[in-house]
Amino acid sequence: MAVLSTIQCVFSVVLVLFASPLPCLNVRAYQRPVMVQQTGKVLPKPQMMTVSAEAYTLAMSSFKFTYGSSSEMCDIVDQAFRRYYDLIFDVDGPKKAPKVPESMAELTVLQVMVKEPCKGAYPSLESSENYTLTVTAPMGMLVADSAWGVLRGLETFSQLIYRTDDGTMIINKTTVEDFPRFAHRGILLDTSRHFIPLKYIKQNLDAMAYNKFNVFHWHIVDDQSFPYQSVVFPDLSAKGAFNPYTHLYTQEDVKDVIEYSRLRGIRVVPEFDTPGHTASWGAGLPGFLTPCYDGSTPNGKYYAANPMLNTTYDYMTKLLQEVKDVFPDKYVHLGGDEVNFNCWKSNPDITKFMEKMGFGTDYSKLEQYYIKNILDISTSIGRDYIVWQEVLDNGVQDKSTVGEVWFENPTIQAVLERLTAKGYRVLLAAGWYLNHDVYNPGTDWADFYKLDPQVFNGTQAQKDLVIGGEACMWGEYVDGTNLIARLWPRASAVAERLWSNKDVKNMADATVRMDEQRCRMVRRGLNAEPLHPGFCQFEYD
Amino acid sequence: MAVLSTIQCVFSVVLVLFASPLPCLNVRAYQRPVMVQQTGKVLPKPQMMTVSAEAYTLAMSSFKFTYGSSSEMCDIVDQAFRRYYDLIFDVDGPKKAPKVPESMAELTVLQVMVKEPCKGAYPSLESSENYTLTVTAPMGMLVADSAWGVLRGLETFSQLIYRTDDGTMIINKTTVEDFPRFAHRGILLDTSRHFIPLKYIKQNLDAMAYNKFNVFHWHIVDDQSFPYQSVVFPDLSAKGAFNPYTHLYTQEDVKDVIEYSRLRGIRVVPEFDTPGHTASWGAGLPGFLTPCYDGSTPNGKYYAANPMLNTTYDYMTKLLQEVKDVFPDKYVHLGGDEVNFNCWKSNPDITKFMEKMGFGTDYSKLEQYYIKNILDISTSIGRDYIVWQEVLDNGVQDKSTVGEVWFENPTIQAVLERLTAKGYRVLLAAGWYLNHDVYNPGTDWADFYKLDPQVFNGTQAQKDLVIGGEACMWGEYVDGTNLIARLWPRASAVAERLWSNKDVKNMADATVRMDEQRCRMVRRGLNAEPLHPGFCQFEYD
Repeated sequence: MAVLSTIQCVFSVVLVLFASPLPCLNVRAYQRPVMVQQTGKVLPKPQMMTVSAEAYTLAMSSFKFTYGSSSEMCDIVDQAFRRYYDLIFDVDGPKKAPKVPESMAELTVLQVMVKEPCKGAYPSLESSENYTLTVTAPMGMLVADSAWGVLRGLETFSQLIYRTDDGTMIINKTTVEDFPRFAHRGILLDTSRHFIPLKYIKQNLDAMAYNKFNVFHWHIVDDQSFPYQSVVFPDLSAKGAFNPYTHLYTQEDVKDVIEYSRLRGIRVVPEFDTPGHTASWGAGLPGFLTPCYDGSTPNGKYYAANPMLNTTYDYMTKLLQEVKDVFPDKYVHLGGDEVNFNCWKSNPDITKFMEKMGFGTDYSKLEQYYIKNILDISTSIGRDYIVWQEVLDNGVQDKSTVGEVWFENPTIQAVLERLTAKGYRVLLAAGWYLNHDVYNPGTDWADFYKLDPQVFNGTQAQKDLVIGGEACMWGEYVDGTNLIARLWPRASAVAERLWSNKDVKNMADATVRMDEQRCRMVRRGLNAEPLHPGFCQFEYD
Repeated sequence: MAVLSTIQCVFSVVLVLFASPLPCLNVRAYQRPVMVQQTGKVLPKPQMMTVSAEAYTLAMSSFKFTYGSSSEMCDIVDQAFRRYYDLIFDVDGPKKAPKVPESMAELTVLQVMVKEPCKGAYPSLESSENYTLTVTAPMGMLVADSAWGVLRGLETFSQLIYRTDDGTMIINKTTVEDFPRFAHRGILLDTSRHFIPLKYIKQNLDAMAYNKFNVFHWHIVDDQSFPYQSVVFPDLSAKGAFNPYTHLYTQEDVKDVIEYSRLRGIRVVPEFDTPGHTASWGAGLPGFLTPCYDGSTPNGKYYAANPMLNTTYDYMTKLLQEVKDVFPDKYVHLGGDEVNFNCWKSNPDITKFMEKMGFGTDYSKLEQYYIKNILDISTSIGRDYIVWQEVLDNGVQDKSTVGEVWFENPTIQAVLERLTAKGYRVLLAAGWYLNHDVYNPGTDWADFYKLDPQVFNGTQAQKDLVIGGEACMWGEYVDGTNLIARLWPRASAVAERLWSNKDVKNMADATVRMDEQRCRMVRRGLNAEPLHPGFCQFEYD
């Protein structure tokens, strides 16, 4: 009864290559699911890894993380030691007394070497995340340029450990040399269409760390609400948040998120999208939006930033200056997407301004005028920027701009080719809209997995301009109730595509590791949803 | 950026009548979402309700539930008093000191009259759930034939209460006369394709009570696993559960679920689906499944109960006798769906049996032979039964059989017409497969809502044979991680269709009440997912 008709059923069997068995498959002798085991598989798959049959035990009482004698010490690594000790030994999870086989050597130390100073550091687009991990008893070695590489290496180390049936913790003799394929590996969360409580933002940052994502693209405000508490314009949230107390990210909350991210090697890139997507700004920033007209009279509605007023740019200067002070990342996302001209066209003052500026009736010139001013402001205060793809298609001159590709125009590959041919750096988001949930979460991850941001017609120089991508979780139908389950482990497919070598594309192997990764996340307390019928050793409860 | 293209976007606006605004709608002056308020609206909508402008306050310290002097008292109602006191006054939720306006009368008592004895009772298909609720200060009255009617009335009472901005709890002067349109209003959970921990089964029972569902159709076993701990055949779960300790419903667990359900007026109808969907039975019940052959030799595979062996019917007699002892409900679901004949056809012993029985090569006769035996066993031990629609299409003679319609053959309405024309009672499940999750949960609930189980070609007598329906949550992609969010509040649409008058179909009104119901469930601690951009006063956290 779990499908609507036999025809649909047979259809599914043919089409759905990586789907779990639908009940219709049961008409023949049925293979029952086997437990998803933790077997020490790693996701994303490291660039180079050699696992030997030789294995070592680990024991909670004797195992230690240490710094190498010449290594830099810092808070980032100290806290990571604490976290990974908990994760590895399940301090909050089920207890089993490990029995150490006498014949097996014990790994008692993982010594960590950080080459660069890391105290108080923030990750950046240029950060090295390279690491080398050597697991040999009694002492393993983890060597990295930076604390960020140490974090990635510790995640790999924790994933390599598994338990035998009798509870013994095991790690095989292993060497790993690893580095990311792309420098920017992001998750977009939208906290405007629904407010997402801090608890779930942090759960998502945990999941990101488990999957080696390194950018939290915080689409923090939009038409629907303005939950960011601004110091220079407190009315923006006082009048623009769903509720200015309960549905608000205070300055302290934002600091908390940035610090939580920093300790996990995750950049926080906030987005303040203008001139469109700004309905929630109107009440708190009078005069910022453009009045719309019916004929010669204002109709009481407003749409988009008013591009003809100096005050608009004064407001944006002050706000972006604050954003610079609050968010340490070198980049800010300035939006620039989906601008509709109807309201601007209806406004007689805008019409006069168009004439004065010599724009004729080409409102895209007005849009470019606005965007150019905003980008100049950003540059003048010392922030680089990311914008949505329209801005680049409309012809920004500054080649340092990063464009985020979000729709097929006419295809994803065509956009990548066109924008990189113009010399822009790009991020890929189109094809990775994980909010587009479907009946069968067991199949759509395969599509995410197969999408390669560098497969398009172009030179190597063009390919090199692709600096990464982002899995997007837009918020129309998502809040704290369903965020984690809907995003994970589907986003793990994007994680591997962005970290691992381009040749890592064996779907059968990926399927096994996706399952193991989802059960690992469940074991670590996240409600990552299932991709197939079956079970984890420890379910979410 | 939240949609893939403008074309798709415009398309959505046209098609998606009840969807929340997609970002593409924002190209014009944008209406920002307003808070989903608790305003005392009730879902499912009562049959008759009059709400006056006159309002009363309630206070935690003075409000009491009491029994009327001639009323029956029982555990069901006692425990409901405790639960609803908690729900109404948010004992575990945010505290606000209500300020009682001097001019407003106070409702201090809700007196409950139960006419029939209710001590230790179990709900049944024939139970009365009628109730009359009169809210007038200082004492309201709730009158019902049975404890079940009291439960429904208390739910309505709790939904009628709301808070003003200053925290005052308010209920309007109201009279309600209410009864369900259909006697069987079910939710199917599948605990075989994934194991669902008791915690989430109970959360779902809470949600069912909040939406006046009254049947938990427990699809407890299937091909993938056998988590039911059988006393007579302990090997069924010992060898057929995913794990016989952690992925198991013990006898105590099952009793717990039945009692939890009973106190909420919910019947527990277990399903033991045969002859197909039984792969997980094989290891624990040797000889039960049919050996499949390649030519003249067994190929080591098995499929479906072996219909030619007396032992098969002995097994089923013992198991169903146990099921009768464990599950108090008069009905058991016997499955009977999706039987494929390939394995039976391959087996030379079955071929001989076919000849002996004079079935020729018509294996549907063999299927009918099996099913008739199982139904006869069920009757002989004193259990009525529900079966999937194929069984009725294949021609069972017993008109007391209830058939559950699960696929379009050729349409839902044609199946309803055909089966009721033969005189069978039916349940509708087709069209209410809520596991078929889609991108836009904000629209699919409208389809569930509009589906009326009595709208088909047929006489009134045929329509009367429709005894209800079930929202189904098949388990291929669902477990504890995502069950509640995916099922609620979408199942609330089915709840209203099955409880309320057939003329209740105003979508705008339903939309408002669906939103209020979802925020109410969130407030009550369930992670019911959002249907639109926007917010509840208290979010899930």
